Amino acid sequence: MIVDIINKKRLGEELSFHELDLFFNGYLEGKVKDYQMSSLLMAICIQGMSEEEVFSLTKVFIDSGDVLDLSFLPGVTVDKHSTGGIGDKTTLIIAPIVASLGVPVMKMSGRGLGYTGGTIDKLESIPGFRIDLSEEEVMEQVKNIGIVITGQTANLAPMDKVIYALRDVTGTVSSVPLIAASIMSKKIAGGADKILIDIKVGNGALLQTMEEAEALSDLVIKIGKIYQKEVRTMISDMNVPLGFCIGNSLEVMEAIRILKGEEKDNNLTKLCFDLATQMVCMSKNILVQDAQDMVMDSILSGAAYQKFLELVHSQHGNLEKISVSKKCKTMKSTKSGTIVSISAIELGKLSVLLGAGRTTKEDKIDYGVGIELLVQVGSKVKKGEPIAKIYYTKLPNLQNFEDIFLIK
Amino acid sequence: MIVDIINKKRLGEELSFHELDLFFNGYLEGKVKDYQMSSLLMAICIQGMSEEEVFSLTKVFIDSGDVLDLSFLPGVTVDKHSTGGIGDKTTLIIAPIVASLGVPVMKMSGRGLGYTGGTIDKLESIPGFRIDLSEEEVMEQVKNIGIVITGQTANLAPMDKVIYALRDVTGTVSSVPLIAASIMSKKIAGGADKILIDIKVGNGALLQTMEEAEALSDLVIKIGKIYQKEVRTMISDMNVPLGFCIGNSLEVMEAIRILKGEEKDNNLTKLCFDLATQMVCMSKNILVQDAQDMVMDSILSGAAYQKFLELVHSQHGNLEKISVSKKCKTMKSTKSGTIVSISAIELGKLSVLLGAGRTTKEDKIDYGVGIELLVQVGSKVKKGEPIAKIYYTKLPNLQNFEDIFLIK
Repeated sequence: MIVDIINKKRLGEELSFHELDLFFNGYLEGKVKDYQMSSLLMAICIQGMSEEEVFSLTKVFIDSGDVLDLSFLPGVTVDKHSTGGIGDKTTLIIAPIVASLGVPVMKMSGRGLGYTGGTIDKLESIPGFRIDLSEEEVMEQVKNIGIVITGQTANLAPMDKVIYALRDVTGTVSSVPLIAASIMSKKIAGGADKILIDIKVGNGALLQTMEEAEALSDLVIKIGKIYQKEVRTMISDMNVPLGFCIGNSLEVMEAIRILKGEEKDNNLTKLCFDLATQMVCMSKNILVQDAQDMVMDSILSGAAYQKFLELVHSQHGNLEKISVSKKCKTMKSTKSGTIVSISAIELGKLSVLLGAGRTTKEDKIDYGVGIELLVQVGSKVKKGEPIAKIYYTKLPNLQNFEDIFLIK
Repeated sequence: MIVDIINKKRLGEELSFHELDLFFNGYLEGKVKDYQMSSLLMAICIQGMSEEEVFSLTKVFIDSGDVLDLSFLPGVTVDKHSTGGIGDKTTLIIAPIVASLGVPVMKMSGRGLGYTGGTIDKLESIPGFRIDLSEEEVMEQVKNIGIVITGQTANLAPMDKVIYALRDVTGTVSSVPLIAASIMSKKIAGGADKILIDIKVGNGALLQTMEEAEALSDLVIKIGKIYQKEVRTMISDMNVPLGFCIGNSLEVMEAIRILKGEEKDNNLTKLCFDLATQMVCMSKNILVQDAQDMVMDSILSGAAYQKFLELVHSQHGNLEKISVSKKCKTMKSTKSGTIVSISAIELGKLSVLLGAGRTTKEDKIDYGVGIELLVQVGSKVKKGEPIAKIYYTKLPNLQNFEDIFLIK
């Protein structure tokens, strides 16, 4: 029976809810083995899934854990999700902006694995910052200051977690149907009224092509409809890194500069403003132009940064003690010209080598290391001019550093 | 690196010999996990393999074990392989025929798994028959009487064996490139000068379509060329079972009837004559017509049956003691008409239910049980007329018995 299900998908046939339920729950119960699950996952990756199948799988994932009820929060709650990328610190910036505008933020975030960092890891680079709040503390804080960012307290879509761990080591990550079911099961279980999804596309992202990104957008919107949740999506570029900094402390410090309005000419700033605007639009049901003005005002008035400080303070973080490594190497351009591209994926690899990311779940993160770019795409550089600073504890082999930049 | 190889194949790219060697040998060494191997196997099943990849994988399989040297045998050795099917007892018939004509037969056969029986299991239904000959005994016997059929003495393509066991439980059996590498690695390691492959196609076989069968034929011939071995193929139908009997003792008794020339009007007899003719052709480099005459003569003169008796005697089998179960149920047609089809796969399933085959490697076989068909495709039957006998120890549910026959 188990093998029959795999054979059906190998031949590109459609699986019923019953078959998917049997197979995936059988895996949790140990009746379906790792090697059978990975075989099915690969068949799904290549043969795809119908919309019905994605809806079924999403339901199987949701049913494996708790579903939160956020009705106690005032107003319309909007959850934001990013499909992940290099240097993506958007949550650190957007959450305080929208909270300062009265959109409640109760966010449970994850740790990073591989090249993509996790919001929780970044916040932990602030000495003292607590990410292990109890359910009561979470409720209390969101009522008091309208914002909380913590680790997973509830058991949301636990099946997705074990399946994701297997996908990660079996070459079955890049599948639009599997990504859609994974994201939406967690978001629906999270209980927000509306959902905004930032879909990254490019060499530093899970999805490499615009077609895949559009297919994912289409799917998550349709899944949302089934659960009566409005879903909006934004597709954003992940061929170049977001902002100038990669590495945990460095990224928190960059987020603060943006919240203070000090970094305007930056792809990260633009993306954050767009996402925050959408969230305010969705929550308050107002026009984009009005939401844009509110977001801009929250930065200029200092309200957004003030909300960030409240968040850090409330979760016992001490911003004065945040630090980057004292060991720093300045990298210089080997030729003159214009920066044509900066490879997000190569920067991601380097950040992992430095110790800013994990290669296995057990790895410890070095919060103070990372890379600060001194140029962006379009910058003109002269040979010998500094283009990046590398903060390190133990300097890795930098032989391939030049490959990060394409200068013409 | 491991995941990169899986990802390449997922995207349909070609793997180098080095990559296949690393991945498959990594599996034997425990560096590549079951769930990673099954993921790659599924990607291969769906995305296929180039000819170069199949050649590489065949070499990796061959290199994992011994390669026999059969040059001590007189004449040109020809090995025959069947891709397996329901009621396939061709080896029991062909081997004595060609041996009686001076073509040396030194055959190492396997046990059956699932619906398809194994030659070794069938021979063991002859009480006393030894299948565990030592290498010396094998040599001695083939020199004395020109024929030996035994279990695996040498360690031929052991990697294929472990991969096959994994394919069996992960829905990755039906892949032409994987089947080609599996068959040819064992045959080339077996050391024969020439190879004849009987490719089964139909509902009772691994391959379901003529296109797949032709693709496999093309591949095995090309692999043979690389190793300077002439390979010929025959594609034969496996939508209906071969002959009238399924079950170990029953099949040996049917083989004897054919060797004695008592069963002429039978798809099995015709296939065996064709295969034996090809083997004689290949070994002696003579015309088909001449080989055909020799094969016919070996049956009519009794030489083929005599050679079978020598084989059984030499391996200590006692043919007089072979028996089928005394419990027998005669099944009758539920309507009048013509037999349009007899489902090989359904008969195979019933034979396993009766205990004639294994569902796991540890299962014990009941040699005396099985099914004897009393009709064939094209037979006209009347309602209530006997159409099959079922020999059993414990009668299984026969509710679906009617589904085996399509009568119109």
